[in-house]
Amino acid sequence: MDNILILGGDGYLGWPTAMYLSMKNCKVTVVDNYLRRNLCNQLYIYPLYNIPDLIQRTTLWHKLTGLEIKVVIGNLQNSELMRSLFNGTVKYDWAVTNQFSGIPSAVVHYAEMPSAPYSMIDYKTADFTISNNLITTNNLMWAVKDFSPDTHIVKLGTMGEYGTPNIDIEEGWLEIEHKGRKDKFLYPRQASSLYHTTKIMDTDLLWFGVRMWNLKVTDLMQGPVYGLEIEDIKVKTDENLYTIFNYDEIFGTVINRFIVQAIVGYPLTVYGAGGQTRGYININDTLQCIYLSIKNPSANGELKIYNQFTETFTVKELAERVKSMAGKLGYDCKISLIKNPRKEQENHYYNVNHKGLLDLGLKPHYLTEEALERMFKVVEKFKENIKLDIIFKGIKW
Amino acid sequence: MDNILILGGDGYLGWPTAMYLSMKNCKVTVVDNYLRRNLCNQLYIYPLYNIPDLIQRTTLWHKLTGLEIKVVIGNLQNSELMRSLFNGTVKYDWAVTNQFSGIPSAVVHYAEMPSAPYSMIDYKTADFTISNNLITTNNLMWAVKDFSPDTHIVKLGTMGEYGTPNIDIEEGWLEIEHKGRKDKFLYPRQASSLYHTTKIMDTDLLWFGVRMWNLKVTDLMQGPVYGLEIEDIKVKTDENLYTIFNYDEIFGTVINRFIVQAIVGYPLTVYGAGGQTRGYININDTLQCIYLSIKNPSANGELKIYNQFTETFTVKELAERVKSMAGKLGYDCKISLIKNPRKEQENHYYNVNHKGLLDLGLKPHYLTEEALERMFKVVEKFKENIKLDIIFKGIKW
Repeated sequence: MDNILILGGDGYLGWPTAMYLSMKNCKVTVVDNYLRRNLCNQLYIYPLYNIPDLIQRTTLWHKLTGLEIKVVIGNLQNSELMRSLFNGTVKYDWAVTNQFSGIPSAVVHYAEMPSAPYSMIDYKTADFTISNNLITTNNLMWAVKDFSPDTHIVKLGTMGEYGTPNIDIEEGWLEIEHKGRKDKFLYPRQASSLYHTTKIMDTDLLWFGVRMWNLKVTDLMQGPVYGLEIEDIKVKTDENLYTIFNYDEIFGTVINRFIVQAIVGYPLTVYGAGGQTRGYININDTLQCIYLSIKNPSANGELKIYNQFTETFTVKELAERVKSMAGKLGYDCKISLIKNPRKEQENHYYNVNHKGLLDLGLKPHYLTEEALERMFKVVEKFKENIKLDIIFKGIKW
Repeated sequence: MDNILILGGDGYLGWPTAMYLSMKNCKVTVVDNYLRRNLCNQLYIYPLYNIPDLIQRTTLWHKLTGLEIKVVIGNLQNSELMRSLFNGTVKYDWAVTNQFSGIPSAVVHYAEMPSAPYSMIDYKTADFTISNNLITTNNLMWAVKDFSPDTHIVKLGTMGEYGTPNIDIEEGWLEIEHKGRKDKFLYPRQASSLYHTTKIMDTDLLWFGVRMWNLKVTDLMQGPVYGLEIEDIKVKTDENLYTIFNYDEIFGTVINRFIVQAIVGYPLTVYGAGGQTRGYININDTLQCIYLSIKNPSANGELKIYNQFTETFTVKELAERVKSMAGKLGYDCKISLIKNPRKEQENHYYNVNHKGLLDLGLKPHYLTEEALERMFKVVEKFKENIKLDIIFKGIKW
């Protein structure tokens, strides 16, 4: 039985991953310090609906399924807490049996501040993003090196690490020929926010650990995720198990935001020309990718990198699709091209290799009309909760 | 008159830079938290001789030259302290006139934990290195962005950022052709210590600031520095103005260490096969390079990168040169090939472009017999201070 540690297990992806792996008969432990919830409170950003705390959710999960997800509440910038998860001294904040789960076979590392706009608010949020993301990753790397060098680290990267270069984007690596000689390097990366820059640095850190200490790492360069319902989770009708869903500019991803905007009649906010192309992925496919990565671990001294998305769209195309579905459902939806608050290319070349996860067996959920309609239907249930004033604040950089 | 802020002004390079620029009629302010001294104390590593504190040194400097070097003692991880240096609210710990020097025309950024072995001792020193170096650099970047976007940032990088690739190393940038398309990127970098990895990250941070906010940055990829006497400083006979000189494995650079080892009859510690090739630079040339960089600032939105060294040697060649000079001076010097405590290539391709600073007017001081002999003579004066047990401890990674 796989023994999986999920760092950042309370987040948008962390909690669904915990349930998904629990359903797949993995032993699961989640660790979180409620960073996302705390930042939402500090910034007066409300999710679409309230969610119970982790302990309430794991208690409910256990009641409904009989499965145990152990919980540790704490900050992984604290290196001693991180180390306790590997050397057996951890104290669980919730568990059916308090005995140590054992050295994890894999760690899924989501424990980062995940918002580009948040990282760009000011020097304080920038400092916080850097130390939170890098110190957590460094603590993880050293704990694995010191106590369990065979644990497979599955780290969430982002497609944003690559930026928008004028050459094809490969999966993590590039062979370069220069003046008649050759070598292979990490694909060149330059990101368009400080958050994304910390993810480049994380990759550099873990690649260092792989080279120096033969760690086993998979880095998943993920595109923006959308969606809410987890189809393989049979108890999905219990709304108390839903994952956190933000529709604001700071923590909301673009498709999720557009659907909320369409439902409340807030014009879809397309930044600049709207030609920004990105690779998108349904949350159900994120879960598949994590599972496939765990089942196909890197060897010692190997860093596998996959580009984790299933289809590319421009922001304008996304807005058009959401608008079209909104129209069919009786909403009067407008698109508003607003002055881009970010510094980014609005029309650019974008051709990305993303074959690796498909080769491992990923079965994509595409952004079909059915998928969009289903998302509208779920979000509509919470329509009364939507607050217009948190949709767009225009954080500039 | 140039108004120069030197961050890390108490260090091996920081203090000589302060005197050198002061002699060149720049207004100079130095900032330091005595990190290097404190770490030496913590680790029981003693420099070759004791040095007065910064305030004593600037007081002496003023007495001898009539020139003022203002002093601020404090930790630049504190963003408010960093910002005070740009918004005029700074309080000087020593100055002839306490009035704000004005917005600096250039900042020379040495304020980093500079030791590869220190960064590799354990998870705590690794965490410290990451947060010290990145938070300081980030604070600098935001302070400049917020208060003085025309200030030229001259940041010390390291040749170690490039590692030892199998292709020629260019000055910071590489044009890459891939599948018939082209783009220009930062030269690929992968370092062989966590310290060096933080320098890659610093470069990434400042390159971000250049792209997003049109900052003016010069990044100097420096090789290991050697030397002690600063020839352009006419008051050099006062030993109280000497810079800190370490000969231990943690803070001592290789040529400096070898000379000390030769003098006390400690076999020169060559790691592994000794084929590790690096680019070296005399401390007098470092000062020239800093001055040339200040006099040739980057434009807004420009990141200039120079490879800052004057000649390349293998470690074994260095040992042979030091041994040969030692023999001429009557020392019985041996070379000891010891098991490499580091994970690095011991024989590798190394061909580096370093034309930029020569084109700007750098007049190199090479590692001649005369230069070596002069270093022996200065170190010999302090022979009685040398402690054998701090030369080599074998920090592994």
